[in-house]
Amino acid sequence: MAEIVAIKTEPVGPVLAEQANGVARITLASPPANALSLAVMAALQAEFDRLRDDRSVRVIVLAASGKVFCAGHDLKELTAHRNEGDRGRAFFEKTFAACSTLMQTIVRHPKPVIAVVDGLATAAGLQLVASCDLAMASHEATFCTPGVNIGLFCSTPMVALSRNVSRKQAMEMLLTGETIDAATAKEFGLVNRIVPREYLNQVVTKYAQTIASKSPLTIRTGKEAFYAQAEMGLSDAYDYAGRVMVENMLARDAEEGIGAFIGKRQPEWKGE
Amino acid sequence: MAEIVAIKTEPVGPVLAEQANGVARITLASPPANALSLAVMAALQAEFDRLRDDRSVRVIVLAASGKVFCAGHDLKELTAHRNEGDRGRAFFEKTFAACSTLMQTIVRHPKPVIAVVDGLATAAGLQLVASCDLAMASHEATFCTPGVNIGLFCSTPMVALSRNVSRKQAMEMLLTGETIDAATAKEFGLVNRIVPREYLNQVVTKYAQTIASKSPLTIRTGKEAFYAQAEMGLSDAYDYAGRVMVENMLARDAEEGIGAFIGKRQPEWKGE
Amino acid sequence: MAEIVAIKTEPVGPVLAEQANGVARITLASPPANALSLAVMAALQAEFDRLRDDRSVRVIVLAASGKVFCAGHDLKELTAHRNEGDRGRAFFEKTFAACSTLMQTIVRHPKPVIAVVDGLATAAGLQLVASCDLAMASHEATFCTPGVNIGLFCSTPMVALSRNVSRKQAMEMLLTGETIDAATAKEFGLVNRIVPREYLNQVVTKYAQTIASKSPLTIRTGKEAFYAQAEMGLSDAYDYAGRVMVENMLARDAEEGIGAFIGKRQPEWKGE
Repeated sequence: MAEIVAIKTEPVGPVLAEQANGVARITLASPPANALSLAVMAALQAEFDRLRDDRSVRVIVLAASGKVFCAGHDLKELTAHRNEGDRGRAFFEKTFAACSTLMQTIVRHPKPVIAVVDGLATAAGLQLVASCDLAMASHEATFCTPGVNIGLFCSTPMVALSRNVSRKQAMEMLLTGETIDAATAKEFGLVNRIVPREYLNQVVTKYAQTIASKSPLTIRTGKEAFYAQAEMGLSDAYDYAGRVMVENMLARDAEEGIGAFIGKRQPEWKGE
Repeated sequence: MAEIVAIKTEPVGPVLAEQANGVARITLASPPANALSLAVMAALQAEFDRLRDDRSVRVIVLAASGKVFCAGHDLKELTAHRNEGDRGRAFFEKTFAACSTLMQTIVRHPKPVIAVVDGLATAAGLQLVASCDLAMASHEATFCTPGVNIGLFCSTPMVALSRNVSRKQAMEMLLTGETIDAATAKEFGLVNRIVPREYLNQVVTKYAQTIASKSPLTIRTGKEAFYAQAEMGLSDAYDYAGRVMVENMLARDAEEGIGAFIGKRQPEWKGE
Repeated sequence: MAEIVAIKTEPVGPVLAEQANGVARITLASPPANALSLAVMAALQAEFDRLRDDRSVRVIVLAASGKVFCAGHDLKELTAHRNEGDRGRAFFEKTFAACSTLMQTIVRHPKPVIAVVDGLATAAGLQLVASCDLAMASHEATFCTPGVNIGLFCSTPMVALSRNVSRKQAMEMLLTGETIDAATAKEFGLVNRIVPREYLNQVVTKYAQTIASKSPLTIRTGKEAFYAQAEMGLSDAYDYAGRVMVENMLARDAEEGIGAFIGKRQPEWKGE
């Protein structure tokens, strides 16, 4: 992370948060598994929530420390609750609700989220990657949905997975539980780019800063519209996106951006 | 099929049914075209229905004898009904209803269905492949939707095709009627893997048995949830999949599977 | 265009229209940018509307003159309306409504539309390509959604883009504004085929004539059904497509086509 001149680094429970030059970096910091215990999910949720209103942050990078990006839910934590009167039902409900909220928070976040994967991403760990807007991986990244091996189908991870890869590809991962490599993940559409490990952070930072240099209003408007229109029929999608386009045209940053383009000068964004 | 030690082989009308080691194999056995006459569709439907409740079967393989996997509907049978008072309408309705029911039976079947394609799959034959959860092909497999050449657009096959491949790829196949090879089919997402013909059955058997070694309850739960959530918006999909996950956690096989994983032992599934 | 023996060529405002052998060719003719001003969109709309009922035309090719296929909306025209009392709102609404109507006209057109891209297609220019049923490109074709660079997210282009390429691929284009080459566009599913520039028109003409040789009734029926079923759940899609199939079977051209196929002769279409 030499590329990011951290202006502040603070441990937020089990995740690390840094930010510099408009890019916030959240790092899963519970190696070796970086499992999504309730505490880790709460820390991630808090950090994503906090970044929503931090005007100094325009792009979020989600990374992990250690060889495993994220191994999914904390199976020991889940199992420990089987002895309760309800056999764990309440805790399981709490866990999967927290997880689904976290994943939708990423999708609905006003700022683009880029996953940086330099190791194994499994189950809800893969779901994190699939839920991000973009994903960059090293050649060492691998992906699987192995729930089927332990009797627990990756039913929530597949909500995100199946919105990234085609049906037969998703079904192969889900039914066999087998691991795919980074190249296959890129071919499937789960990953945008593969970068050699030694350059991964450098490339991600450059990439994040490219996006951070755009108008935050424009990015927020567009990201929200992207996922909203994706769930509509064609006619409704055009009615909706047309209205978004008109409001975007009337915003100050579009006037500035288009004016700068016509005038062949650099635009200055105000996020309005 | 040397790899499957058949414990029973019985002709079920125009299809062959075998099963061994948890894997049932249904073979289209009306070469050279393996056309989907009403009789063939009824035999397939009966076999899929029967396998629904056969607890000894965990995975279904759908194969074909001869050089053509399946050439689609039986055009001579359809044409023979044009002389009727209604110009064949009732028979056509019966045929396409039987076909649509069969295809949806595969999608909604509690057991994974793997297509094994070692030749030409056209029209409703391609639809069979697209409707299966997974598809394995030899290098000799080819695929097309040639209805446009005979004045009958492949409108029902495209329901399955367009849920497997992208729009422009599907439209190219549908509008030109041209044939794609196995490599293109894999690139499009219609086929999972290409295996040399001489190893095809061996690889499929190993692959099927991998899936057959999982908890049938988990597989059934996950397959049903996969196709259900695919038709929902993101928020509904998470609400639904979260409920599926909680019930799956509370099932005996997940307790066993997770316990075995934590205890570093092999799980024993009961399908409960 | 030596391959098309034009039987009539007429300037229709800022677009050129030619037709020969069942194939109409509409050429954007406002180089260098071929921008979609209101006048250009009106000319395109008029031409697509006219071709709807021209029984001599079976396939439409959409091409462009110059090095840029289409650079999207006319930013100077849009900007000129900022001085109005409503800051341009009414004009922006008119522009995006005209654009959305045009794009949906292509999707809902009874005749297949093939984009031929031999240069840069950006923003609403890319949207044109994505809205066509098929797209052929030269190696010199490039594609981008650069609105984010000028403060105006490509929200309407993404309606078409996201129905052609996967989510992470679409988001990468939209968030970075970067340009992809023809090979990447093919990999993403935005383009069907890449042809060397010197053979592009020849190949497109052959390709268009292949489709023009089919029954226009069958093509119209199938194209309409394709986009309609794509917005339905599986069960509704089968109910609908099954009804389409029965009516198609009862049409004269299917009877002729199937009869010709069984009788091993060439069919003669009447479009009925």
